[in-house]
Amino acid sequence: MARITIKQLAEQLSLAPSTVSKALRDSYEISPETKQRVLEAAQRFNFTPNPYASSLRRKNSRTIAIVVPEVEDSFFSTAINGIEFVAHSMGYHVLIYLTHEDKALEESVLKDLLNGRVDGILISVSTGTKSAQHLLDYSLSGKPLVFFDRVLDEIPVHKVTTDDFEAGYLASKHLLENGCAHILFLSIGDSLNIMKRRFEGGLEAIREFRTDTKYQYVNCTPDPDEARMLIQNLLSVKNRPDGVIGAVEKLAIATYLACKTLRIRIPEELKVLAFSNLPIASLLQPGLSTVRQPAYEIGKTAASLLFERLNKNNQPFNPKSIVVPSVLEPRASTSGKVPF
Amino acid sequence: MARITIKQLAEQLSLAPSTVSKALRDSYEISPETKQRVLEAAQRFNFTPNPYASSLRRKNSRTIAIVVPEVEDSFFSTAINGIEFVAHSMGYHVLIYLTHEDKALEESVLKDLLNGRVDGILISVSTGTKSAQHLLDYSLSGKPLVFFDRVLDEIPVHKVTTDDFEAGYLASKHLLENGCAHILFLSIGDSLNIMKRRFEGGLEAIREFRTDTKYQYVNCTPDPDEARMLIQNLLSVKNRPDGVIGAVEKLAIATYLACKTLRIRIPEELKVLAFSNLPIASLLQPGLSTVRQPAYEIGKTAASLLFERLNKNNQPFNPKSIVVPSVLEPRASTSGKVPF
Repeated sequence: MARITIKQLAEQLSLAPSTVSKALRDSYEISPETKQRVLEAAQRFNFTPNPYASSLRRKNSRTIAIVVPEVEDSFFSTAINGIEFVAHSMGYHVLIYLTHEDKALEESVLKDLLNGRVDGILISVSTGTKSAQHLLDYSLSGKPLVFFDRVLDEIPVHKVTTDDFEAGYLASKHLLENGCAHILFLSIGDSLNIMKRRFEGGLEAIREFRTDTKYQYVNCTPDPDEARMLIQNLLSVKNRPDGVIGAVEKLAIATYLACKTLRIRIPEELKVLAFSNLPIASLLQPGLSTVRQPAYEIGKTAASLLFERLNKNNQPFNPKSIVVPSVLEPRASTSGKVPF
Repeated sequence: MARITIKQLAEQLSLAPSTVSKALRDSYEISPETKQRVLEAAQRFNFTPNPYASSLRRKNSRTIAIVVPEVEDSFFSTAINGIEFVAHSMGYHVLIYLTHEDKALEESVLKDLLNGRVDGILISVSTGTKSAQHLLDYSLSGKPLVFFDRVLDEIPVHKVTTDDFEAGYLASKHLLENGCAHILFLSIGDSLNIMKRRFEGGLEAIREFRTDTKYQYVNCTPDPDEARMLIQNLLSVKNRPDGVIGAVEKLAIATYLACKTLRIRIPEELKVLAFSNLPIASLLQPGLSTVRQPAYEIGKTAASLLFERLNKNNQPFNPKSIVVPSVLEPRASTSGKVPF
């Protein structure tokens, strides 16, 4: 089906193209009757205005962007669903950009988005993000930027996170209570604040409950195969660790796979816990203990804050930091008992 | 940081704005030396052209769209990675749109994309898609559309799929060989060709190997909790099925959860197999037998076909249908033996 132009539409209505254009923009210069006629004809001939032209005119695209490192992690796929729920209820389209933990790609996406393709951005930064210039540039452009989960403290925008220090404390305390004396904390990306906070929360529990615990910070690569090889090496030493905290889901999965190869039994010889939202954690062999982040809730809250800013664009802005608590869900992977 | 306009950039260079604009467009009217000066200054002042204006000018956005039902299924998240690998190597941005198996949303996204926001679309249609008008409209607009995995046969565009009939045959034959006599085929969306083909492939194996097999087609909802309740009901009857084929991953997960609630042992009392790409299928309790679709390969192939069309836009177009084979991966969930 060929598309009808605004000129052809105007001819059909015996109106000037500029009148049709104004009517479609809901201009006060056009009578309600004419607007009605134009809208009906636009619908009948399936006329859709050019979004580039109309975005320039309306100065908004009714589209928001989500920028996340990946969608294979259940935290991000669930958070996206929370964001989309809010956006669709507001009549907005959502674009998802993946950065694959690549800082250069994240910068390029942000630079691209600076120019009006979307009305605002929800971002969870990639592990490589140390400099914040591209995020600062975007936030200073006047368009709303909201951080969720992985935030950069220094940028004065809304932030929605979970209580990562507390979550790390819960994870580490749980392993100590189940007898661990040598815990590996598997991190991804030294520069991420959430990694630091989770690790430090774990350290706090050790200070409080058992100061002679060996507590080792290891920075893994985002590549799952490389991470698995590293973990395999770390578990192949003589006095190997008896507990693992995976700061992201795929590091716990990599640990499970490494244990399968090395024939290390979970939880008898190694207890494993992960920060994860995996709906099938209970179906793993053995069931994976998790600190579950409220991903859907975080997504919804972040999106609501974005739309609040879009709707009150000219009011003074006070950045909020909202914290949604995480929950410990112990399963067989950290239990001293034999799994069923 | 305030953004510099093309006029301000021209002032800095003591050039006319139109000269700067032409230089940025790589016009033949401008000397290489001037182009070099303009590009250096543009970089120094962090000038980025307005993408709407420049898209109108260049008539392309160097952006492609992926339209998929969801990202929580490992097939789609893996296929997206395959597509992005190709797109980034071509210097293109990728936008991901989720349709949440909602036909109206899919139509609205396609209509929106008709107007030049992207140079082409890779789509896997939602379960609700029966009418193909919105897809036909897009393909007739002259911009390339490529189907992957979930295709509509009637639209004459490139298609990349797996051999769904053969995959269904493999799944059903495997269950028959392991002693099943009453198989539930759990489908999602009656209108999807891939569901029909997988089911019919299974029927072919039954005709060939054991014609007295009870083979039941059940259409489940995309909502995982509703699907689980339905499966629970189907497994609560007296002469219940002894085999389940999940046409998508989440229906196998729902079956696992239903079995946990009903205390039905897998594989002793029920054998379960799924069409899935789940990297952790082997870590489930018991390990999930799968027919693994070559998701990454499908994504890469589909993206390559799209770029082939973008680069040879004016040549006559012969739609190709490329089929990448699926692989049966038997694990404990379909074995007669007790899982380790």
